[in-house]
Amino acid sequence: MLKALESAQPGTRLATGELLDQLRWNGDGLVAAIAQDHDSKAVLMLAWMNREALEETLRTGRVCYYSRSRQALWRKGEQSGNQQVLREARIDCDGDAVLLRVEQRGPACHTGREHCFYLRLGPEQSELTEPVVVDPATLYGPKA
Amino acid sequence: MLKALESAQPGTRLATGELLDQLRWNGDGLVAAIAQDHDSKAVLMLAWMNREALEETLRTGRVCYYSRSRQALWRKGEQSGNQQVLREARIDCDGDAVLLRVEQRGPACHTGREHCFYLRLGPEQSELTEPVVVDPATLYGPKA
Repeated sequence: MLKALESAQPGTRLATGELLDQLRWNGDGLVAAIAQDHDSKAVLMLAWMNREALEETLRTGRVCYYSRSRQALWRKGEQSGNQQVLREARIDCDGDAVLLRVEQRGPACHTGREHCFYLRLGPEQSELTEPVVVDPATLYGPKA
Repeated sequence: MLKALESAQPGTRLATGELLDQLRWNGDGLVAAIAQDHDSKAVLMLAWMNREALEETLRTGRVCYYSRSRQALWRKGEQSGNQQVLREARIDCDGDAVLLRVEQRGPACHTGREHCFYLRLGPEQSELTEPVVVDPATLYGPKA
């Protein structure tokens, strides 16, 4: 079905359930999910979703990922308060990635930075470029 | 090392080779790579890189991925001509994703669309939203 859609015209509509049946979930049942700030267009983070997380996100309008470390649904912001309100969700041509355009409340990164991509790579030298804007201890409590 | 960098200040510099040693390559030796248009900030595509592809990209300034289907380095645009010129590369806090800011020559998607995220998901109905801007037959030749 994804192959047939490649040459389809804008405006072509289809049932979301049928489309989700076609996604290429990996061996762990996940697809990559990119969160992009709806206003600034900054790429905030990359996480993972299983079908349940994606369906919940579409239904509730609050972004829910799947935490690979905790092996559980991860409602972004459930601990830090830094929720993501969904403005738009898209999938890519080969059905293994989701793009989420979100309103980000507070910093997206668990380090207290606005986004997770704060390490800029050069051929030889790399550099940390982004400041911590909120002390992570205030988001998650002091570390033991 | 990535953990220690979480509380480091902007301007902290380190050797790229040591940083790449810390990336969390998956079981296939890959990390996810997001390509974002440097000017429009549109998210263009998600692909994969092994260390060799990432090092080549940083060295040459032309984006090189790893093709999972062909199991080989994939110099973006080598067939279609639609190369990506690297403007900036970043990695994320937990070292399993790369963000590439690129100058995209021609459409990024193999379907001839400007980006790969042309299917917008709704809770019940989804819709194809983006037009084909270049006939893919002119990029790859007619399909057999």
